[in-house]
Amino acid sequence: MKLLASLALALSAFAATSASAQFARPDDAVKYRKAALTVIGAHMGRLGAMANGRIPYDPKVAVENAQVVADLARLPWAGFGPGTERLSPGAKPEIWTEQAKFRDLADRMTAESAKLLAAAKTNNLDNLRAAVGATGASCKACHDQFRNL
Amino acid sequence: MKLLASLALALSAFAATSASAQFARPDDAVKYRKAALTVIGAHMGRLGAMANGRIPYDPKVAVENAQVVADLARLPWAGFGPGTERLSPGAKPEIWTEQAKFRDLADRMTAESAKLLAAAKTNNLDNLRAAVGATGASCKACHDQFRNL
Repeated sequence: MKLLASLALALSAFAATSASAQFARPDDAVKYRKAALTVIGAHMGRLGAMANGRIPYDPKVAVENAQVVADLARLPWAGFGPGTERLSPGAKPEIWTEQAKFRDLADRMTAESAKLLAAAKTNNLDNLRAAVGATGASCKACHDQFRNL
Repeated sequence: MKLLASLALALSAFAATSASAQFARPDDAVKYRKAALTVIGAHMGRLGAMANGRIPYDPKVAVENAQVVADLARLPWAGFGPGTERLSPGAKPEIWTEQAKFRDLADRMTAESAKLLAAAKTNNLDNLRAAVGATGASCKACHDQFRNL
């Protein structure tokens, strides 16, 4: 019980079930979304290297990496809640003024990640290449539109 | 040329399969493992709050959070590879001198996370509480032993 109490206390950043109220403080939300995107980026990087031949194609490793991307794809977006604007020098204000467009691009990336996992599971390098390209394009579409360089 | 080519192949095969060589640079590994642990901590925090009654128990939300913890539990450990020691002021050097003990604690946490997901899926708050306690204890055991405060 003591452990539970300290867990809840130390990590009680997270309060309710609605996306915009999951974090007690906006900087927790920013830290969380950056962390999720960092992990996604690492695994996309490995898949990209495999797709363009910089590391050998290993179907099992490809599935493992695609699994992580698919698992995490839905996570970062909750971290762009109200109050995080002023903490986000790398994020364009349009994220908050054009929410529908932002959500749409996030949904697209989530959908492409699911297809990426399915493609990896075919154990076919051409399928993997196509899906890595499509998923990477969905990342880039959002970065181009909503991220400051 | 042939030697170089096979060397490059051997090296990149190593990069693709060996946990300690998954990252181009040690600071990528450190950034990655911190990111994975941040995401795990966020979702453990939500489960802790639910187990503790700080937020209402919602079986569906509990499963969603436990799923993320279980998905990510295996990830951070690859980020503690050789070369990361000097970049890790928060990590005790025993991580690298007592690798077997560290791996054992990492495996314990991964195993507890799988049980946590199973417990969440029973839709029973008492089961969830017990599993959150056990998983939290496995986090704490490693922090106590290997993390600088």
